[in-house]
Amino acid sequence: MDSHFGDRLAKSCAEKDSFVCVGLDPRWESLPDSIRQGVSPTDLQAVARATQRYCQEVIDAVAEYSPVVKPQAAFFENLGPHGMQALWGIVQHARKAGLIVLLDGKRGDIGSTAQGYAAAYLGYESPWQCDALTVNPYLGDDTLAPFHQAATDNGAGVFVLVKTSNPGSGFLQDLQFGEPGDSKAIYEHVAEHVESLAVSHTGESGMGSTGAVVGATYPAQLAELRAQMPHAWILIPGFGAQGGTVEDVKHGFRLIDGTSTGAIVNSSRGIIFAYQKDNSASDWQTAVAAAAKEMRDQLRAI
Amino acid sequence: MDSHFGDRLAKSCAEKDSFVCVGLDPRWESLPDSIRQGVSPTDLQAVARATQRYCQEVIDAVAEYSPVVKPQAAFFENLGPHGMQALWGIVQHARKAGLIVLLDGKRGDIGSTAQGYAAAYLGYESPWQCDALTVNPYLGDDTLAPFHQAATDNGAGVFVLVKTSNPGSGFLQDLQFGEPGDSKAIYEHVAEHVESLAVSHTGESGMGSTGAVVGATYPAQLAELRAQMPHAWILIPGFGAQGGTVEDVKHGFRLIDGTSTGAIVNSSRGIIFAYQKDNSASDWQTAVAAAAKEMRDQLRAI
Repeated sequence: MDSHFGDRLAKSCAEKDSFVCVGLDPRWESLPDSIRQGVSPTDLQAVARATQRYCQEVIDAVAEYSPVVKPQAAFFENLGPHGMQALWGIVQHARKAGLIVLLDGKRGDIGSTAQGYAAAYLGYESPWQCDALTVNPYLGDDTLAPFHQAATDNGAGVFVLVKTSNPGSGFLQDLQFGEPGDSKAIYEHVAEHVESLAVSHTGESGMGSTGAVVGATYPAQLAELRAQMPHAWILIPGFGAQGGTVEDVKHGFRLIDGTSTGAIVNSSRGIIFAYQKDNSASDWQTAVAAAAKEMRDQLRAI
Repeated sequence: MDSHFGDRLAKSCAEKDSFVCVGLDPRWESLPDSIRQGVSPTDLQAVARATQRYCQEVIDAVAEYSPVVKPQAAFFENLGPHGMQALWGIVQHARKAGLIVLLDGKRGDIGSTAQGYAAAYLGYESPWQCDALTVNPYLGDDTLAPFHQAATDNGAGVFVLVKTSNPGSGFLQDLQFGEPGDSKAIYEHVAEHVESLAVSHTGESGMGSTGAVVGATYPAQLAELRAQMPHAWILIPGFGAQGGTVEDVKHGFRLIDGTSTGAIVNSSRGIIFAYQKDNSASDWQTAVAAAAKEMRDQLRAI
């Protein structure tokens, strides 16, 4: 691999002329009938195998249109150990298909344990061989350091939660601290730190290996955070099913040499369950591929 | 099981007259020679099997002195899928030994995904069959709701990170917001919400099923938070190797009918690697058991 994650991501987006990240959130009840056929929902080993097959077929369908896939750890963990085995196989499959694998685990712990998580996931020498991981900043800057260090050392990436897409994200992230007239929000405080990590390890693309998560559902904050973190890649969830539009996510991009870059936009349900809405497709994979292609084309307008 | 986690924890602490939580953080390089013998550190399947054996023997050694064990998810995830299989076996072993299993995963995600994590871990009908899980509040109150609901429904427990034990926890948790003269810290804001969840579902013991994590390394805040969350069980990490003492952790307990309750104190390295310091023991398990017994006796002074 290129030794720098930010460069690798930039290159992959440029090659596919696409900023689409496909979220793999395989809720069993939403999987195609052809995948679920003959599998008892209580047989977790069989469910995990079928889920793996489904995710791999999704990957095959979207690989042309998407530089990145983002497996959501929760939906593999909730199948028990068999689900984790399935996740491993899916990561391998995505890598063979040339995709960047961003594991959405939102991990975070005190320093020595954060090292354990970083060693688990970051880089092709790690057990899970992922390209990048989402992490949670609540525990503090010292707990982000081991992730940033491992990413830097292993050509991998980290995406720190800054402003999340859910309705209640303001509960903690929007709280203002500091003197009146000179206050800022918690998410801005985290963003400042993310930018300091990003700028400490930029590649040829000008972008860092540590980036941020900012929801499409908060476009004003996205614009503000783009300006505040010029060297950070931004993962933008909340597009599609959660309500984010092209108009919303455009604020997450920056121009370098006349070209938009610096952000990837995630859609999960809108792509991987596209067959639920698209009755015209001959099979579920065709519907999934069409949805990924459509999203790529929509984002090209940026 | 008793249908209420708070009651179950109270009963188990009372029966063993112990507030000891043994943290299972099995760093391979620190495991006893007899466990590591003949195992190549790069053979993750063999490492995972040996790690499982070690953890199960730790459980057997401490079961008499400790009502709760707390496996740290990171140290199983960093052995890949085989590590997760080992974790599953360890949970089963601990349950058979009559111990309450609190998985330290610090999970957190937007609502529908939080439901996935909760379904994965909380309760004996879940794939991992844990009694309780640690969760992270950064994403907001709406993301804690599915964990609290699942715990309430399944006789399980949730421990929300409030004030963590690491040196950098103040980076975010100590920030003060609100009007001058009427400001409070982020951790107090989270604590208020935890108390509201705890009090919404108390059992016969008077304690809730949703509790908090507060580090022994911040005794002043621990005392303050104990008063602020009278119905919340507090998991107190940071005892022993991280520097917390009996004098520090006593602030985390409350008196009900003249008896101390409402807190469990975690030690990981101080117990599970006790053989590194105790040369008098005939074997490593004896040293581990002695360390657990000593901690139990120390805490009885409270």
